[in-house]
Parts: sequence; structure tokens; C-alpha cells
Amino acid sequence: MSEPDAPGGACPLPLRHDHIELAHGGGGRLTRDLVERLFLPAFDAVAPRDLHDSACFRAGDSELAFTTDSYVVSPLFFPGGDIGTLAVYGTVNDLAMAGAEPFRLSAGFILEEGLAVAMLERVVHSMAAAARAADVKIVAGDTKVVERGRCDGLYVNTAGIGLCRARLAPGAIEVGDAILLSGDLGRHGVAVLAQREGLEFETTIESDCANLAPLVRELLRAGVSLHCARDLTRGGFATALGELSLATGLDFELDEATIPVHAAVQAACELLGLDPLYVANEGRFVAFVPERDVMAALDVLRRHSPAEAASVVGRVVRSRGARGQVSLRSRIGGIRLVDLLSGEQLPRIC
Amino acid sequence: MSEPDAPGGACPLPLRHDHIELAHGGGGRLTRDLVERLFLPAFDAVAPRDLHDSACFRAGDSELAFTTDSYVVSPLFFPGGDIGTLAVYGTVNDLAMAGAEPFRLSAGFILEEGLAVAMLERVVHSMAAAARAADVKIVAGDTKVVERGRCDGLYVNTAGIGLCRARLAPGAIEVGDAILLSGDLGRHGVAVLAQREGLEFETTIESDCANLAPLVRELLRAGVSLHCARDLTRGGFATALGELSLATGLDFELDEATIPVHAAVQAACELLGLDPLYVANEGRFVAFVPERDVMAALDVLRRHSPAEAASVVGRVVRSRGARGQVSLRSRIGGIRLVDLLSGEQLPRIC
Repeated sequence: MSEPDAPGGACPLPLRHDHIELAHGGGGRLTRDLVERLFLPAFDAVAPRDLHDSACFRAGDSELAFTTDSYVVSPLFFPGGDIGTLAVYGTVNDLAMAGAEPFRLSAGFILEEGLAVAMLERVVHSMAAAARAADVKIVAGDTKVVERGRCDGLYVNTAGIGLCRARLAPGAIEVGDAILLSGDLGRHGVAVLAQREGLEFETTIESDCANLAPLVRELLRAGVSLHCARDLTRGGFATALGELSLATGLDFELDEATIPVHAAVQAACELLGLDPLYVANEGRFVAFVPERDVMAALDVLRRHSPAEAASVVGRVVRSRGARGQVSLRSRIGGIRLVDLLSGEQLPRIC
Repeated sequence: MSEPDAPGGACPLPLRHDHIELAHGGGGRLTRDLVERLFLPAFDAVAPRDLHDSACFRAGDSELAFTTDSYVVSPLFFPGGDIGTLAVYGTVNDLAMAGAEPFRLSAGFILEEGLAVAMLERVVHSMAAAARAADVKIVAGDTKVVERGRCDGLYVNTAGIGLCRARLAPGAIEVGDAILLSGDLGRHGVAVLAQREGLEFETTIESDCANLAPLVRELLRAGVSLHCARDLTRGGFATALGELSLATGLDFELDEATIPVHAAVQAACELLGLDPLYVANEGRFVAFVPERDVMAALDVLRRHSPAEAASVVGRVVRSRGARGQVSLRSRIGGIRLVDLLSGEQLPRIC
């Protein structure tokens, strides 16, 4: 990592806060602070620049990817999905982004005393349906129950094992790569927030929650030189690109006019004071491909749901500063620097 | 599973309760109800009789074990351990019990807004130390934060991947096998409860929380025909044996006089109205070995901490009924049937 204040390794800097804030779970700056200054040094794990959506390693004779996410979304059910779908597709997507074929999942439930069993059943059946759709098996599980008021209905953790087919990692991003975005931004965050707050818009906005593994599979099958892929979850499009730019030390130049945001999402974001570039998605990803493969990649993506609206949104260029940064040419022609999510935009979005 | 009321498969029976109770997380009957009637049928997973501490499967060219546990122990710190040690050793032990060499772990944190960062740091460093001691790497992680009052400080999930060295499973248990117990019972449950309730005993009872993988490794290395192993966690010794007896359809005959319980634990249990056979342990396991290997197994165990007090506590015999059951010859000569934990003895013990 090229940030001068985050050397990593032997002598981690102290954390910036004395107490945990909601933003520590937001996927932006404070989450990064925890990861770089506490988890990575303590666990003697990879350097921050090598962090990706899954860890990849050789196990016996196999190359595996391994990832985990806990899901605490509130409410548990929202238009277009629920915590169960999210818990399966979220983890499946993290495996796919590392170039792995999703294979086996675990499911660890934390339940609140008094939760309606019917609610748990809905979530479990939803996980089962998503697992079947993604062709992964849920083979290990655990259930804990805590007293009323020590949880919020249910939380679920999934961990996933994938079989590596290609090594997709930030380190493979090259100057000249095109940045492809698989679809429009912000649906998931707005759908959850609207449900949570009881907001009604003219159009019901549904979460984009989806399995992205088939898209990566098809890109690789078509022979596209996919350099890196990352799904856009907490912190949204802007944070994902910001992290990759910091990790590679390269600049990304984006063109706002090419970034699709549905009119209903745009209107909701304006009403709520949210920037769609930072709003969470659960079925969108960015792909970095060399210029020569752009047409082939778009052709593959646009033939597969949910990437019919895939487009080129930017380019990778040599950095002009001491570290990578992301700049956005706005619709009215100005250039705006895009940074990681700072603070918490929408808590408990996944 | 030979229980007439739990056929498994296509048409699961409805759950016995409408709402989640603390006992659904206790590891006994109600946990089993959730697993057999909801999780296994929905996830199209193994038959109940094949359930073990880890799922084992081939992945590419490797034979892997995979397991997960969420940890919600209260309080977070207790004599002899803390939630961090527990989260590493608990998952490592589940891998070891399936005959696998623990290899990689994931860690998913759910934090409560307002948690002192120093507390999180203590837990993380404790996990890191336990991982180093167990020679596993924590390679994947996630952090979520929920609002005050939606968690209890912190919960952590670990999932683990192991490399299978031997297939240890309930199905390999045979009539005539000796049942070995690696040490005395009940320390963990009593240690946590005493800390939680502010109870003071003459002697401070420390949790037995420990890494059991070296013991299994040494047994296998010595050529012991280890048929099955299971660590004694929630629901304690009695529930672990009850489950294995049901899974195999075989009877287990135990001799109470050979089951070690430390005097201080016994006294605490009497005071608290607990049966040490049902109290949770985090560093004890039972091993099923053929009679010819008993001396070799005891020799190995007694030379390695924490199994210096290993002993033979019973035998496997052909079942006299329609299903397997566990009987205990008490110190005063009577025979008592030992069943799974029913209800909740000690919530949030791990």
C-alpha cells in the first residue's frame, strides 16, 4: 500500500478510534483502518496491496479460494432479495471475483431468542434455493442462540471454498486496461433503505442481488484476458475502484456519462442525500480487461443476465501522483476526485 | 438415524416449536431438531447419521474437511481462555475430529457499536496466538458493525479448512471398541458460568480450552486404529456419546467410576445443580479404538498435554433395543440411561 501512513508489517499504527463506530463496518476508510492496522498485522496475513475478495492458496494438490462474510442486513427481507439470498450470492461472488469456481459453503447462524421459526425457515429455504441456482452445496453449519435484545432477529455467516480457475488479482491490472461495469448502480442500497424506512417511491426499486459467477465463467471461457474483477458491495463502485487504485498505484479515469444509474435510483438518492457511486450493490462488478478484449468482453456480458447493460466506464493510466487515484469526468465536464467511502452512508446494508 | 420420528429426506417433520428458544442453541435435543428437520433437508446435505464435526469431500485433487462455528460466549474473557482462543481451537478441534490436519481459517466479526477497540484488539491477538500455536493461518475475514443493543460486544465466526489424513466418522465405530476419554469433565462450562455470575469458589476453575489436533495426529502417527473421535462441547460428554450412539445404532456402556471430574468442578456442579456429564468442555474428546489398540492409545495420550488423565470409560456393545443407547453404571452400582441434553443447561457457553 502506498499510503505513507500505513506501512503495514512489523509496527502497525494504532487505530484511529477508541470505540467501534458503525462506520467500522461500512466498507470504507474505517473498515480499512481495522484491516490494515489490526487484522493483517495480527494474523500475519497478506500485505494490504494483495488483499482481494478471497484468499487463494494451494491445499494439497488443489488451488483453492476461501472467503467469509457475515450478513446483518436490516430488514431481513427487502424487494428483490433477503438475507438468505445475500448470504449465498455474496460469498459466491467473492469467490468468483478471485477467478474461482464456487464449490462449497458453510452457514453459521446467530439467532435471537423469540425469533419466529417461520422466519428462519424462509431464510433457510431462500439460502437453499440460491445455493441450488449457484450450483454450490452448503455442507457445514452451526447455530447459536442469544437472549432477546442481544441480536436483531438473525445474523448469518457464510464461508466459501472455490476451485481456482484463473488468478484474478489487483496486481494484474495494467496501464491501458479498460474498466467495464456490468450494470447500473445503487439498486441494492436504495431497495434496503426504502424497505427499512418505509419509503415509497413511484417505482419499487428491487435489489440487484445476483450470482455473478456465471459472468466471470463466461468471460474466461470466451478467452477474455480478464486481469481483475471486483464486485461492488459496501462502499459501492467508488470505494471498490478507490481500493484497487490504491492497491495498484495506478490512476483510473472514469467518465460519469457512461456510468448507468436508473432514474428511480437517481431520484431516490437525490431525495435521501446519497451518492449512487457509494451506494451498495450486490449484483454488479467491475472488470479490468486489455483494450484488445473489450469488444469480446462486452459481447459476452451483454448476452448474460444481469449484465445486459454492461459498458466501458473508464481506463487505467499511469499515476501522476505518489499514489493511485480515481478521477471522474462529470457530465458537465469538470473533473472530480473519487475517494473511498468516508464515514457510514448506510449501516447494515448487507 | 434410527429415531422413528425423524425419518429425514423428502418430507421433513415440522419443527417442534414456533419460536426460537435458547435451547435451540444448546447442542441438545432442540438443536438436533433444527438440524434434522430444517437444515439437512433444505440444504440437501448428508443424512443425519453421517453428521460429524466437519464435512469431508474431495475438491480437485485434495480431500478436504470444512467446518464452521459462531462464538457468542458470555463473558468474552474467562479463566483459562477467551472468545478468541475458543474461536480458533473450537474450529481446529472440529477439523481434527474428522481426521484432518487444520490448515486455514476465516474469521467473521460482528461488533457492537461502542465496543472498546482495546477489547477487540485483545480478542484478535488472542486468536492470532492460538492460530500460531495450532499452526493454522487466518487468511480471510470480514467485519460488520451493528447498532448498540443489537449484539453483545462481539460475536465471531470461524470457518476452517483441513487436509484429510484419515476418515474418522461415526460409521467406523464397531462393537467391541473401547471408549477413551482424554481428561476430566466440566471445566469450561463451570469456568464460564462462575465468571459470568461472579461466583467465587475455593479454587479458581480454569477452562480446559485447548488444541486437540496434536493428540489426534499423535494417535494416527503411532498407528492406532482410531475409529472415531469427537470433542465434547455444548451438551457435554453425555450429548456427544448420545449422538454417536444414535448415529451408529450401537449401545455404549459407561462406568461412572472411570470418568474423571475434578473435585472443585464436582462441588461447583452440585452447588449449581448441574450434571458434569452435560457441562461443556473445550479441550476434551472421546476416542473409539479397537481393544487391541487401547494400551497404545492410552500410552500416546498420557504422554501429551492435555490428555495426561486419559482413561478407558466404556465399551461399545451390540444394541439391545430398536436404537442405540448409552447406559452408565453409577458409582453405587445402579444403571442409568444417559440421553441427549434436553433443554438448555448453560446458554452462551461457547
